[in-house]
Amino acid sequence: MSKPLFISLDGIDGTGKTTQLQRLAQWLREQHVPVVTSADPGGTLLGEELRRLLLHRSDLSLTPVAEALLFMAARAQLVVEVIRPALSAGQCVLCDRFLLANVVYQGYAGGLDPEELWRIGRWSASGVEPDLTLVLDLEDVSLARRRKGRFPPGDRFEQRDEDYQRQLRDGFRREAQRLPQRIALVPADGDVEEVQRHLRKLLLPLFHTHGWNLTA
Amino acid sequence: MSKPLFISLDGIDGTGKTTQLQRLAQWLREQHVPVVTSADPGGTLLGEELRRLLLHRSDLSLTPVAEALLFMAARAQLVVEVIRPALSAGQCVLCDRFLLANVVYQGYAGGLDPEELWRIGRWSASGVEPDLTLVLDLEDVSLARRRKGRFPPGDRFEQRDEDYQRQLRDGFRREAQRLPQRIALVPADGDVEEVQRHLRKLLLPLFHTHGWNLTA
Repeated sequence: MSKPLFISLDGIDGTGKTTQLQRLAQWLREQHVPVVTSADPGGTLLGEELRRLLLHRSDLSLTPVAEALLFMAARAQLVVEVIRPALSAGQCVLCDRFLLANVVYQGYAGGLDPEELWRIGRWSASGVEPDLTLVLDLEDVSLARRRKGRFPPGDRFEQRDEDYQRQLRDGFRREAQRLPQRIALVPADGDVEEVQRHLRKLLLPLFHTHGWNLTA
Repeated sequence: MSKPLFISLDGIDGTGKTTQLQRLAQWLREQHVPVVTSADPGGTLLGEELRRLLLHRSDLSLTPVAEALLFMAARAQLVVEVIRPALSAGQCVLCDRFLLANVVYQGYAGGLDPEELWRIGRWSASGVEPDLTLVLDLEDVSLARRRKGRFPPGDRFEQRDEDYQRQLRDGFRREAQRLPQRIALVPADGDVEEVQRHLRKLLLPLFHTHGWNLTA
């Protein structure tokens, strides 16, 4: 009997999360693993409204606390409307970002207490947590920006400077060190194929122990 | 040396909070107490956006957790942009609702743990709390609805039934019992003048101990 897995992808912007997630979903589906993909914030009507407020309303002043709470509200709704129903129906979930992003962006880089963000975040998500978070890690954070190019202009977080991107990277790395069972760092400096191979290699044993018969 | 006070008014809808708050502000200003009035959610650009989502978007599905977090995000911004600056400048603040409303609406009536809501709410508001919350209490909750009349149609919370309004009332009463130093119940079945006299009588000693020379 196979057990559904909940996997999230995270990391600074421009590491190729979205592409890698789509490739993983395709790989799993080809091997008859039922997969739901989602993005946090997003995936629900509330999530889309809040995504707009959080990322694309440059006129809107937001404290780190308000930011964190809006992400958490979007996630609360996503868990109830999308993630929990999918898992209950035996489907695996691949999600572009999840709670770890709050811990890093508003915690490590925003000055809030990471422990408190974990705590409130777990409460917000009714205890639903990824079995594994894959963090795409770029040694050279400036590469992320160059990859994205200058157009379209970045969102609220992408527009900040390289020091900020480095703070984020350090935050992701520290959490991966603290929670090695839950968070895996994946070097993302290589090309798309190389990174994808690495991701599949990390996921294979996890899917096997959950009863899914997969090959790389 | 007089010390600024932060007072909130709360209670179910239709108890006359807004009118009473305006009357209190007028009374204080006539006696040269500097007063800032505000409403939660509201008072900031984010607050107004979230107020619209929370109260007037009937198409939007919201879990009690998401609801609570949106109110808290609005409040986080209100504290930083309005309430703390006013108090720091020596002004008193009168606010239409505050954290207690979350504890009652999403806690007692929404099924979330009131203690957890207090905890997350205090973190969200960076520890800024009303010196006193005045709860307008109606013995007959149906009176609130009759007072409001049928037009304009009520918001997301006003539209719920009388049982719900009674659950809310019980929640406010239980918290007032638990925190008598912080929350005062004021009977609101009487006319506007009578309720206003009661409120002033409650506030007078508090303002006196904070160095404000007031008369009823």
